[in-house]
Amino acid sequence: MNDIKEIGKRAKSCSAEIAKLTTNEKNEALLRACKKLKAKSEEIINANNKDIEEAKKNGISGALLDRLILDESRINDMSDGLADIAKLDDPVGEVLSIKTIPNGLDVGQKRVPIGVIGIIYEARPNVTVDGFGLSLKTGNTVILKGGKEAINSNIAIVDILREALKESGIPEDMVQLIKNTDRESTTELMKMDEYLDLLIPRGGQGLIKAVVHNSTVPVIETGAGNCHIFIDASADRDRILPIIINAKAQRPGVCNAVEHILIHKDILEEIAESVYKGLRENDVEVRADKRFRKIVAEAKEAVEEDWETEYLDYIISIKTVDSVEEAIDHINKYSTKHSESILTESYRNSQKFLDEVDSAAVYINASTRFTDGSQFGFGAEIGISTQKLHARGPMGLKELTTTKYIIYGNGQIRE
Amino acid sequence: MNDIKEIGKRAKSCSAEIAKLTTNEKNEALLRACKKLKAKSEEIINANNKDIEEAKKNGISGALLDRLILDESRINDMSDGLADIAKLDDPVGEVLSIKTIPNGLDVGQKRVPIGVIGIIYEARPNVTVDGFGLSLKTGNTVILKGGKEAINSNIAIVDILREALKESGIPEDMVQLIKNTDRESTTELMKMDEYLDLLIPRGGQGLIKAVVHNSTVPVIETGAGNCHIFIDASADRDRILPIIINAKAQRPGVCNAVEHILIHKDILEEIAESVYKGLRENDVEVRADKRFRKIVAEAKEAVEEDWETEYLDYIISIKTVDSVEEAIDHINKYSTKHSESILTESYRNSQKFLDEVDSAAVYINASTRFTDGSQFGFGAEIGISTQKLHARGPMGLKELTTTKYIIYGNGQIRE
Repeated sequence: MNDIKEIGKRAKSCSAEIAKLTTNEKNEALLRACKKLKAKSEEIINANNKDIEEAKKNGISGALLDRLILDESRINDMSDGLADIAKLDDPVGEVLSIKTIPNGLDVGQKRVPIGVIGIIYEARPNVTVDGFGLSLKTGNTVILKGGKEAINSNIAIVDILREALKESGIPEDMVQLIKNTDRESTTELMKMDEYLDLLIPRGGQGLIKAVVHNSTVPVIETGAGNCHIFIDASADRDRILPIIINAKAQRPGVCNAVEHILIHKDILEEIAESVYKGLRENDVEVRADKRFRKIVAEAKEAVEEDWETEYLDYIISIKTVDSVEEAIDHINKYSTKHSESILTESYRNSQKFLDEVDSAAVYINASTRFTDGSQFGFGAEIGISTQKLHARGPMGLKELTTTKYIIYGNGQIRE
Repeated sequence: MNDIKEIGKRAKSCSAEIAKLTTNEKNEALLRACKKLKAKSEEIINANNKDIEEAKKNGISGALLDRLILDESRINDMSDGLADIAKLDDPVGEVLSIKTIPNGLDVGQKRVPIGVIGIIYEARPNVTVDGFGLSLKTGNTVILKGGKEAINSNIAIVDILREALKESGIPEDMVQLIKNTDRESTTELMKMDEYLDLLIPRGGQGLIKAVVHNSTVPVIETGAGNCHIFIDASADRDRILPIIINAKAQRPGVCNAVEHILIHKDILEEIAESVYKGLRENDVEVRADKRFRKIVAEAKEAVEEDWETEYLDYIISIKTVDSVEEAIDHINKYSTKHSESILTESYRNSQKFLDEVDSAAVYINASTRFTDGSQFGFGAEIGISTQKLHARGPMGLKELTTTKYIIYGNGQIRE
């Protein structure tokens, strides 16, 4: 495994130089990489075909296989992502404030790159391009560890990215891919606190838990979204169906899709039938508690396990609650602290929900599907943090930086 | 060890209630605790006497023993610290910004408590009071794990703090002390990611490393300060001695005291004698490299190990460098990324040092001794972060909070 250590060393040793690049230098390299990926799309597609063949041999199909496939149009989209990143403001170097303290020292805080970032992710090869682009723009050096399903695609992509860096006069080791796809190299990466400043796992709950429990490098958890919508008794009736159908069925495989609906008992009889019908018309399987099934007998039965499950599929579970307090307690117990929404016309309940639900994004009267860097206007995102330190919610460029205190003196000593 | 888990559970279960306290409620409890500690100082001193006796039996003496001692005046000081915290602005509830995104959703970021914080610390019992006060003011629940040397003092203090909470109508479990002083309970605390949101180790390098390497709870590293001052060739001659003597000898046992001096070769001959003399007159032992010792033969010899050492004592080591670049490389290699200073009149070198030294606080023409929450105007501090995520440098109240996105809608669904 010595090569993993070597990769860490190489990343660390060029990190200071990457941090010093000007915005122009970084943008020029991003645009060059964008062009080069498009020009060499055939190479990428050939490598991707190998991955697809292998995946089919291993019985991968459906959505998982689809996420792996790269064609001309997807390559164009992910390449254009780099041009979009080039257009964003560079957060590095911004001075957040300078204050003069009583002895005359000017104390300021300046935004600087984090250093070396590791990203561990699963099948999707577009994360390779995004991770590179966001890291370069923020002056960080990145080590990528993609899934074994996409290894050939990732190797082809990273080769092209490194070529673009070289032609731009930037150390190629700004981006490195770990080519060993075994678990041992992932474990070794998690222990390299000597070289890495941050580790971001992107993928399923299993991957994220493993990284949190084993890493000695600081970790930002991303992604898991066991999201809820609470329909309060006072909810605007016309908004209920559009919002829950949008939150569940517009794209059920993503982390900000809703998984569970809580309905206030006082509105249950009035809306149960139409909620059920609306969801079924959108191919959503409905699992519900006793009280709901008393009204809609066709609904399947929800069991305890359902409340803990992030389906990422056309399935939803429904629970009746007696109050906004019970809804909040249920959410704080079962959610993964990603996104939750309340539908209400009650001022008190809207404020209570906003204050007391302990999640990264809390909505009033809207679909949960907006928790997303591009929707929030960040232009790009590296993931959605569901933890509380450093970054919470969608992480854009700013969240890939840190600060340092800069202090201008003229001979001050401490009394 | 089941009681450690029980402590975690109890902290978590009152955490939502603590987060909801108003500023008035928190301040009232802080002032009550301040008064109560003073009124019961005899109880604290009696408990402290047991700790001191035990410490003496175990051969603890000097600075370590001194840090343990509580007398009337120290109890007054630490109690007044709570009244000072009551005076500070409450960061909780501040909305950092609200922006309307194109579809009409109002997306804001609100400052909220982190939740449950664990603090692991060594001998000083005043950390018990500070940790309680800063956590309460920020709406956090805290679990304290103090050193075994101060266990009787800590038990007495926490009993009084809990009494004050109870009288203020606040759940006493807002502050809990782990009374087992064995290593196993520390280890168990580090693994309680189910109940804890943040773990802050305060103490020596050994403690901090152990926590970073074993914790599954997010950690903020604090404290270790292997600090440097670089004397550039263009340094204002009159400032050199006052600054290095202040940075080393004003209080050598603290993390922002300087440990190593780098001298540009072009100024070495001119200043070596006076630097040596000035330091010796302040009882500082000087260990130096060959080039310095060629001029000042009485200086002791510095070895490789010296550059890595945080003496926390009246000892300093001196190295000659050929350029600002060599100084920066040396610092980035050996420092613990706490505080470093350059003495220079060169615009280029001041900017280069500020940009390229990768530490929490970088100074121009001042003593390193100012890296401190109260000096920077935060009013109080829980520690000085030497890592890059979430907080870097002195951590005040703001650093004990996180944010959440609050989103006000009127029926928005995603296209």
